[in-house]
Amino acid sequence: MSAAPDAHGESEVLGRLRAALGDRVDTTAQSRAAARADKSGHAASGMPLAVVHARSVDDVQQTLRIATATGTPVVTRGAATGLAGGANAGSGEIALSVRAMDRIVEVRPDDLLAVVEPGILNADLNSALAQHGLWWAPDPASRAISTVGGNIATGAGGLLCAKYGVVRDAVLGVDIVLADGRMLRLGHRTVKGVTGLDLTSLVIGSEGTLGVIVGATLKLRRLVPGDVCTIAATFRDVRTAAEASAAVTASGAQPAIMELMDAASLTAVHALLGLDAPTPGAAQLTIQTDGPAAAAEAEAIAAVLRTAGGSVVVSQDREEGERLLAIRRSMHPAMETLGTTLIEDISVPRSALPAMFDEIARVEREHGVVIPTVAHAGDGNLHPNFVFDAQPDAAGIVEAPPHIWAAADDLFRAALRLGGTLTGEHGVGVLKRRWLVDELGEDQWELQRQITRVFDPQGILNPGKVFARG
Amino acid sequence: MSAAPDAHGESEVLGRLRAALGDRVDTTAQSRAAARADKSGHAASGMPLAVVHARSVDDVQQTLRIATATGTPVVTRGAATGLAGGANAGSGEIALSVRAMDRIVEVRPDDLLAVVEPGILNADLNSALAQHGLWWAPDPASRAISTVGGNIATGAGGLLCAKYGVVRDAVLGVDIVLADGRMLRLGHRTVKGVTGLDLTSLVIGSEGTLGVIVGATLKLRRLVPGDVCTIAATFRDVRTAAEASAAVTASGAQPAIMELMDAASLTAVHALLGLDAPTPGAAQLTIQTDGPAAAAEAEAIAAVLRTAGGSVVVSQDREEGERLLAIRRSMHPAMETLGTTLIEDISVPRSALPAMFDEIARVEREHGVVIPTVAHAGDGNLHPNFVFDAQPDAAGIVEAPPHIWAAADDLFRAALRLGGTLTGEHGVGVLKRRWLVDELGEDQWELQRQITRVFDPQGILNPGKVFARG
Repeated sequence: MSAAPDAHGESEVLGRLRAALGDRVDTTAQSRAAARADKSGHAASGMPLAVVHARSVDDVQQTLRIATATGTPVVTRGAATGLAGGANAGSGEIALSVRAMDRIVEVRPDDLLAVVEPGILNADLNSALAQHGLWWAPDPASRAISTVGGNIATGAGGLLCAKYGVVRDAVLGVDIVLADGRMLRLGHRTVKGVTGLDLTSLVIGSEGTLGVIVGATLKLRRLVPGDVCTIAATFRDVRTAAEASAAVTASGAQPAIMELMDAASLTAVHALLGLDAPTPGAAQLTIQTDGPAAAAEAEAIAAVLRTAGGSVVVSQDREEGERLLAIRRSMHPAMETLGTTLIEDISVPRSALPAMFDEIARVEREHGVVIPTVAHAGDGNLHPNFVFDAQPDAAGIVEAPPHIWAAADDLFRAALRLGGTLTGEHGVGVLKRRWLVDELGEDQWELQRQITRVFDPQGILNPGKVFARG
Repeated sequence: MSAAPDAHGESEVLGRLRAALGDRVDTTAQSRAAARADKSGHAASGMPLAVVHARSVDDVQQTLRIATATGTPVVTRGAATGLAGGANAGSGEIALSVRAMDRIVEVRPDDLLAVVEPGILNADLNSALAQHGLWWAPDPASRAISTVGGNIATGAGGLLCAKYGVVRDAVLGVDIVLADGRMLRLGHRTVKGVTGLDLTSLVIGSEGTLGVIVGATLKLRRLVPGDVCTIAATFRDVRTAAEASAAVTASGAQPAIMELMDAASLTAVHALLGLDAPTPGAAQLTIQTDGPAAAAEAEAIAAVLRTAGGSVVVSQDREEGERLLAIRRSMHPAMETLGTTLIEDISVPRSALPAMFDEIARVEREHGVVIPTVAHAGDGNLHPNFVFDAQPDAAGIVEAPPHIWAAADDLFRAALRLGGTLTGEHGVGVLKRRWLVDELGEDQWELQRQITRVFDPQGILNPGKVFARG
């Protein structure tokens, strides 16, 4: 998986790192063990030889020059909240953390842009921007604990994407350090700009394979004025709820948020929150509208939902809205009460949502597994949660067993058949590298791998991730 | 400029093309001469050996297989409305026209996407989409005569970009044929998708250097409901108008269109349209708001403009609005009455618009040239028109003389100093390749060139364009 061992021993690499970076080089067993894992449950084999806590671009450049000189793999990490194993560092690798590079360098309300370091948390950035009446739209569910650099490296999504776009729509430029330590400034400070190839977009979602993101110029929005209206609608089953969400999209309405929860998810969350058990089999849509026409849009959407068979509640009260949305936000803790989960991330064209839920039901039946599923129904992105019982290994890491992967494989192929994709917002990392070629085809897979080699001729940046046949 | 002559003579290449493609191979002098030029005024040296009028993906693949086998350069063309010489085909090259591949393959109102062939005109596509209540947002000024494939290949912009985005925001996937004739399907049919590298974005704006675009999956919007309000505001000089436009952006208003015309532009257009001459030195902003809050937004913007010293007219009448906007749309014909023009395309952060107009005035003074300028002020994209007298050559082509290029060079460097870019929406082509390295830096220029070699190892796709030191 990782690059082949070379003539330079680990002690020489460590010696060089310490000489250049002093106490930013962390070789404690605790830090090295923590760097093996992200939030996917998966962990790398063995422990990285060190964690470098970079505090500046120069720290990153020095680390990469040493890595290139010694042929040592480098795994870049932010807050390690990824769900695909993309930032897991293992045996013989340097874990390079940019979490401490967390400054906001510049906020320009007049140009609707901000320049930031990669380690700032998404939520911290948005708190600072709110003082200027601004926000950065990408809102992964992890936004309180994930970094902007990590959001860019994975091409993160979130709840608001159908209306407010994905990360690719919200980044004007990135500064990256290449494998050999050179820094490149990619992109523009302008709204428009077509000089040469769009390498900024190429870096977004490249999962640490092209370079280390050390800065970003972000495209901001003004805070949306007006009210927020929240709609909760219950349906007799998940297929009916999925058809209702497709009907909302087809009606021309544009909710800010449209989340779907199936019966198993709803039951688990109600139990966790101490609410009355939901009607057996029932599924729920939670929808928010915003902006000057929020109330009118909410009424129009409610009418569509009622026609589609929903039992509908509309609230114009922000606190009541947050209470309704809290049910959706409690999904992850609720899943933890059921066992260990593998959180998947397929995406399909919105009209295919009902068919995709049929496929999930089929996979549950045929593989004898339970797959509580929530979906960002406004953009067709589903998170099936494969629940299983497993014992942690010595390092406390739990891996999904083969029968779970067999069910996931079946599900991935179904998503591709429906015109969908393996991963809407989590990335490929380690966990989905086996299936990447199925989606891209051999020719495109090989071409993409060759592009990574232009940035990183030795293949020392995050080897074994994304472009590796696991 | 073009690839070196090789062992395969032109007659052999033509023979192979004719055997494979029959009457789609056009060697008439008229067609070959027309393929030398686009709308920039610039033309390639010599004539291409043939124009291939592709009618299918297979035609494109056959052409490229022959080109690869014989080492013959290929220049892809749509409607040839480019302004940077990017589609000009010269001596020893095959001009590959995809203009006849103009079908709409699929429109999915429920998924807000359309699949099209590259040769369809932007305006024809939008007429067809309007029947479904949909539109494709990119709106280059050339939209009545330019193709969707060309819009994608150049990363075209337009008037509505600040509110509705650029091409990059409106394309989900592209199908390309590589230099060796293999076809790749890049991107997704889904709103979200992060499997592997974002090659779709890489192809957008790549100006024919990576492959031939033979299909595109477009992200659509619903037609905006509600009224359109139009505001015309006159200011004593262009700097005051530019400051007013920056004040509108800074106020948080989001116009659909915000166009700025300087005094020389306004005078020329008024003369062309037979209107009373404008006040000497006066400049104008033409602004449109749309959507449910159009009228309220227009009033708020009008207040900002009055505070900034403008003489303001607001109209809620669509026809009156079109009359006001017609002044801006008459810019190109008005310039043609003044002489020959080199239309430039710099872009700066919006707050730098006033400073950029100061630089334009400086360049006019120091170089003794006249540069009527219009700007998409909502996104900081300026089109300075360098006016000169020149005689056409034997082929009817007029090239800008050296003193005009010296003035343009001064202007480009000023834009870069202000944090801007060489080209906001026209592309690099032939005309700006000299300056590309100034913006990208040597390291990034070389890395980008290497990426083109991954797609096109022999360098037969649009050689001499973009990545050539002219």
